[in-house]
Amino acid sequence: MTTSTGADTIALPFDERIGRLAEVAVRIGLGLKHSQELVITAPLEAAPLARAITTEAYKAGASLVTTFYSDDAATLARFAHAPDDAFDTAAGWLYGGMAEAFRNGAARLAIAGDDPSLLAGQDSQKVARANRSRSKAYVPALELIANFATNWTIVSAATRPWARTVFPDCPEDEALARLWDAIFAASRVDGDDPVGQWKAHNDALHARTKILNQHRFAAVRFQGPDTDLTVGLADDHEWCGGASVSRSGILCNANIPTEEVFTTPHKLRVDGYVASTKPLSYQGTLIDGIRVRFEEGRIVEATARTGSDVLARVLDTDEGSRRLGEVALVPASSAISASGLLFYNTLYDENAASHIALGQAYSKCFLNGGEGFSEDDLAARGANRSLIHIDWMIGSADIDVDGLTAEGRAVPVMRAGEWIG
Amino acid sequence: MTTSTGADTIALPFDERIGRLAEVAVRIGLGLKHSQELVITAPLEAAPLARAITTEAYKAGASLVTTFYSDDAATLARFAHAPDDAFDTAAGWLYGGMAEAFRNGAARLAIAGDDPSLLAGQDSQKVARANRSRSKAYVPALELIANFATNWTIVSAATRPWARTVFPDCPEDEALARLWDAIFAASRVDGDDPVGQWKAHNDALHARTKILNQHRFAAVRFQGPDTDLTVGLADDHEWCGGASVSRSGILCNANIPTEEVFTTPHKLRVDGYVASTKPLSYQGTLIDGIRVRFEEGRIVEATARTGSDVLARVLDTDEGSRRLGEVALVPASSAISASGLLFYNTLYDENAASHIALGQAYSKCFLNGGEGFSEDDLAARGANRSLIHIDWMIGSADIDVDGLTAEGRAVPVMRAGEWIG
Repeated sequence: MTTSTGADTIALPFDERIGRLAEVAVRIGLGLKHSQELVITAPLEAAPLARAITTEAYKAGASLVTTFYSDDAATLARFAHAPDDAFDTAAGWLYGGMAEAFRNGAARLAIAGDDPSLLAGQDSQKVARANRSRSKAYVPALELIANFATNWTIVSAATRPWARTVFPDCPEDEALARLWDAIFAASRVDGDDPVGQWKAHNDALHARTKILNQHRFAAVRFQGPDTDLTVGLADDHEWCGGASVSRSGILCNANIPTEEVFTTPHKLRVDGYVASTKPLSYQGTLIDGIRVRFEEGRIVEATARTGSDVLARVLDTDEGSRRLGEVALVPASSAISASGLLFYNTLYDENAASHIALGQAYSKCFLNGGEGFSEDDLAARGANRSLIHIDWMIGSADIDVDGLTAEGRAVPVMRAGEWIG
Repeated sequence: MTTSTGADTIALPFDERIGRLAEVAVRIGLGLKHSQELVITAPLEAAPLARAITTEAYKAGASLVTTFYSDDAATLARFAHAPDDAFDTAAGWLYGGMAEAFRNGAARLAIAGDDPSLLAGQDSQKVARANRSRSKAYVPALELIANFATNWTIVSAATRPWARTVFPDCPEDEALARLWDAIFAASRVDGDDPVGQWKAHNDALHARTKILNQHRFAAVRFQGPDTDLTVGLADDHEWCGGASVSRSGILCNANIPTEEVFTTPHKLRVDGYVASTKPLSYQGTLIDGIRVRFEEGRIVEATARTGSDVLARVLDTDEGSRRLGEVALVPASSAISASGLLFYNTLYDENAASHIALGQAYSKCFLNGGEGFSEDDLAARGANRSLIHIDWMIGSADIDVDGLTAEGRAVPVMRAGEWIG
């Protein structure tokens, strides 16, 4: 929690680092094309980064950039004052509009930076109802994103409530500055030529996926303290990582930063038990100390040291919410992991450790990027469907990972959290 | 320009005045109902007022409040950097979504406070193309608003660029405080019981419309310096003013403040010449010293001392943009007029002087609030249609207004800008 991110040796002025992050977001994250529309979602406090990204997007030829700001104060006002029946309402007209924009070729950029504990003190029934209504209304847009129909990316901005959570013992201004340092470092914008650095990083991740794809493993097995989990992989799965090409033909990086290689599990072939290695921050609630047991792909036992009621509701969202949609490998020595920080933010914490995700599978993690596979084709190969997609961390320097061949032979992939070979 | 708004005698703390304005906006402006959704549009700088309104809306039973923030910096970035072909693009998916929300019963609240001169230095061709694209995309939503399908209101928030324009000789903080004072005073929130005051004000406006409606004038005639204009009124027109009932059955005040009584002109029966008495701030451009001549409802000559190119483009928007959609009477002694300020903001300046509006007519200014009249019925009675609805001021203490009966008899309505009787 106290390790420097290394960014304090950098003397670039703040505005220049924001500008570089915006450039990486638009050029590497989105690969934005001339005449593309761009839809941004951002916390109100991230307006300076949203503006810098807007400027970079127009420089890259965007036709129109539309930003939706979310406001924690407005969300809290709803929980404080709205009538009980309000919590089953969601802005379907807005999410439907976004889906229409994506269908017509708009790119999508999300700035993450929300207060990880915003809703921790609220009635968990209301939180669950509000989340469920929104998730349902968001399905058409989420499917286009999950199917990679258009180019999209997520970047982060430091905000005061997030910074307070990550650095609880620092004065607020210092906490904010340190979180920005960590974001700039992890997003690789502090060195010379950030865009060039990102290209090299993408090459390294592509090399790793190539090795895994050549093995054509039937499963991967995680072993360590409180963990012995075998994750069967979907038929015709493919490992992905780094930049990839959207169905609209645009090379982009869906996450800035990204350190993971990942693929689609088989929804019926996950067995064993596993313990989380970092807390999960889920829509304002912290869920920590998760332990679950799988049988034939389905979670049959689940406990958590904190947030167990929220976890229970998440698992009951729908049929697919107890099954896996993603498995990802990240070395314990990744840049983000090396920072020693717990970010309480999936985009960061998932890039510090190997992880699995409950819920919806990404259709792109199949041969040829899933091109030509219908929903039925994907389901037949084991791809899970759900309203949710929630990553949680199961990797650490104590975890070994083997690939299992179709014949059941174990091939070492990671030892003590690090890549073999 | 230096007259006090009277508000400086009030000792209420700023947050309380913001809270009262929010309460008036929700209870008087919207008449928000239990379980109604609310869609707010606001400049980013108006976030504190948007938050206060959000809280009041939830207290009044709103199910969900969604705020879209506009950002002058993002708009300027587009004009600075976007490729030329960008300016024919608009967010139809967003405006279509808003129209869907209104159709499903959502209320709409706009916070006005934009920089009146934001786009003054930009290429007027690009400004016109961007405005035209947006107006076109906004048609479905605008029709629902113009037809009063749902309850809606506009209130204002002081912003720095607007305050600089209104008080160019003041230090910025003082200008901002003075503009807030003027807004609180004009919005009638400084006295005891603002909601009660608004009810009394609505009663007074209703008494005025009743007198005008009893006369059933065929036309109103404006006479004064550079002005002799006869505005024929639509068949079956009705004068409106103060609170009115939306087609969804909700009593609301579409403008906070409001001092006007208004009705629908006949699109073919406007003749004579007229000069503007205040500058018009139109989407970032100031148009001042307007002089136009009408023949059979249509503007056949138009000049402006400044902004004449923008005026010419506005008039060329479509067939209806050279004809009138509204005529409104406001006494020269109205509270806003008495402030002596020029606000460069239609919501304020139109309530300081009698005015006319180019473009789209409001269908509610007909017998029975236009209930049961189809578009064809309205057109047959003389209601104008257009993509635009732009108010500009033609009243002052130098202007007399007569009502003309069907037989051509002149009945004095206003003398030297004040009501007769």
